Amino acid sequence: MNNQLQPKSHRIAILAEGSFGILASKTATVLVRYLPDNVVAVIDSAKAGRDVSEVIEIGAGIPVVRDLAEAMQFQPTMLAIGIAPPGGELPSAWRAVLREAIAGGLHVMSGLHRFLSEDAELAELAAKHDVVLWDARKPPAHLPVATCKAAEVKSTVILTVGSDCRVGKMLSGIEVTNAAKARGVRAEFCPTGQNGIMVWGWGIAIDAVVSDFTAGAAEQIVLAGTRAHDVLLVEGQGSLVHPGYSGVTLSLLHGSLPDAMIFCHQPSRDTVARYTVPLPSLLQMIAQYEMMAAPIKPAKVIGLALNCFDLSESEALAAIAAAEAETGLPATDVVRFGADKLVDAILKVHPAKSAEENEHARNKTMSHSPER
Amino acid sequence: MNNQLQPKSHRIAILAEGSFGILASKTATVLVRYLPDNVVAVIDSAKAGRDVSEVIEIGAGIPVVRDLAEAMQFQPTMLAIGIAPPGGELPSAWRAVLREAIAGGLHVMSGLHRFLSEDAELAELAAKHDVVLWDARKPPAHLPVATCKAAEVKSTVILTVGSDCRVGKMLSGIEVTNAAKARGVRAEFCPTGQNGIMVWGWGIAIDAVVSDFTAGAAEQIVLAGTRAHDVLLVEGQGSLVHPGYSGVTLSLLHGSLPDAMIFCHQPSRDTVARYTVPLPSLLQMIAQYEMMAAPIKPAKVIGLALNCFDLSESEALAAIAAAEAETGLPATDVVRFGADKLVDAILKVHPAKSAEENEHARNKTMSHSPER
Repeated sequence: MNNQLQPKSHRIAILAEGSFGILASKTATVLVRYLPDNVVAVIDSAKAGRDVSEVIEIGAGIPVVRDLAEAMQFQPTMLAIGIAPPGGELPSAWRAVLREAIAGGLHVMSGLHRFLSEDAELAELAAKHDVVLWDARKPPAHLPVATCKAAEVKSTVILTVGSDCRVGKMLSGIEVTNAAKARGVRAEFCPTGQNGIMVWGWGIAIDAVVSDFTAGAAEQIVLAGTRAHDVLLVEGQGSLVHPGYSGVTLSLLHGSLPDAMIFCHQPSRDTVARYTVPLPSLLQMIAQYEMMAAPIKPAKVIGLALNCFDLSESEALAAIAAAEAETGLPATDVVRFGADKLVDAILKVHPAKSAEENEHARNKTMSHSPER
Repeated sequence: MNNQLQPKSHRIAILAEGSFGILASKTATVLVRYLPDNVVAVIDSAKAGRDVSEVIEIGAGIPVVRDLAEAMQFQPTMLAIGIAPPGGELPSAWRAVLREAIAGGLHVMSGLHRFLSEDAELAELAAKHDVVLWDARKPPAHLPVATCKAAEVKSTVILTVGSDCRVGKMLSGIEVTNAAKARGVRAEFCPTGQNGIMVWGWGIAIDAVVSDFTAGAAEQIVLAGTRAHDVLLVEGQGSLVHPGYSGVTLSLLHGSLPDAMIFCHQPSRDTVARYTVPLPSLLQMIAQYEMMAAPIKPAKVIGLALNCFDLSESEALAAIAAAEAETGLPATDVVRFGADKLVDAILKVHPAKSAEENEHARNKTMSHSPER
């Protein structure tokens, strides 16, 4: 697992130059949401002087600053790269900022596909200044091919799936985990992407794994998560109808072998983002996930997490009611209305599995008793 | 594309120590089948002294020899690693043989996940003896995320899909390509795995690509293949019900965006090899592929390639008849009964697409004519 640095113990300046916004800088938004006490400044010259909450609605009190020099007055100990562009390349203009940060003694946290720790110039500079270049996306070496071992864990495994990228699969996983923990459930979020890893401190970015081992990586995450937890919320990736990333999605499904799924969707979206592919209906997309799970380990979608950030409250309530009517499943916007409905749905699966486990254990003991 | 060495211009000794057999050494079998004039010996001490055809039914006249020293009397110019074990590691006992081969002036061709060219000891030795370590599985750098461009090519794109690994997706692709060429069609085989790349001389091993770019790699293969060919046979990988490799399979489907699919299956197999996952019925598996294709680009399965190597001739004919009755699709064993039935099915799709293209081109010209 990837846990070289613990961001929760750092003062973080986020680099989002030229692209700070709710969706344009997803990593920045996630760090502000889940590490609000650690983020000390966001760098974007175009929005300098504003409060972070004026730009992305959360993060009140955190300033947007002009450049790294201005951010340094807030004594950061780490610079986080705030975007993850398609293809994962480092925008060339940012290299100078990274050199400046490293020379200034800051650790650097990155979720880019192109690993900073393998960049000769930056690695040499980091060694010289004794700072860590942490590539949260870099997978561990020697991952196995998946073996269906995830089907045998005692925890109840829930996978967040969805209609597209950026619809809330990570966020729903975290919110449901937190809501379950608040109700006394030994729940754990299992990150499968760089942003989740950055805020939660462990996991594997499965989209950076060689494809023969991607399902194996998902399996490893479940096997790690099950050690001390009863309910695992595995972070979904991509979508089965995404032309670029569908393979990652299916590897995750067949590697983690969930007991049930939570389907995430943005009601205002009707095509795959950046493509012209129309999204099928909710029922069709749900059926597709269930049909792909069935041959290896059947799993049902048991609830919907709708991302209504771009709708008014009444529109959001209407979208939730419509989705519930269409699917017959409980739906919520976890940010706006909380995740309790989804925790309820999970707890209906969870005791059923626990009872089955106990029954199985009792039968095993009984069948062995004559030998004792 | 990966074409560092052209195996067709070499005299090849195949290393299959301890595992030479039809399925146990799939790479060896493929090289013997498609490069029979190039393979000069197969190394397996357990079967030394026999003719290759006594072990794998093809390759008459090629000797199985005890070791590399014995193989050297046939003046090989290249040593090919004859297996591709799960996980792709190099069996440690073989390292000594590789050192001996390199020191003897042989190029080395490998399909292992662990790249020989990145092994410091072997790379240094190869440089010293001026030979190439060719990792057929090593993908090109800087592959893109898939963009649906494969849907726009003029060629008719056929993807071989299937129920499991090792059911004949590569072999069917090659046999159908050859049968189509024999009938005057400008057909091309598009390799997506190390064995296909070795025998065909180009391609990308998509299972070795980082999963975010696997569909993009499949797209690149189609874009390369379409340049001078009317019909492309894209080599399938894995299966949608394979717990380890299903993600590779789906990436290939959504990256190559075929016009139609050929479904490959071994009738005697009823579970996924090395797993306890039961195979769904033919109709269910076909429906699964068609359902996964539909949201991005609809494609039908138009024929079946059945691998009946372990059945008698009458059993094979019965299996083919049963599959045709179940699915209503033409079926054949391409090795035993030829691929013409499948070429017929493809040619029904192909002229339809060509006519559509022509119609589209004519309409385009007409709509533009007023501006001229």
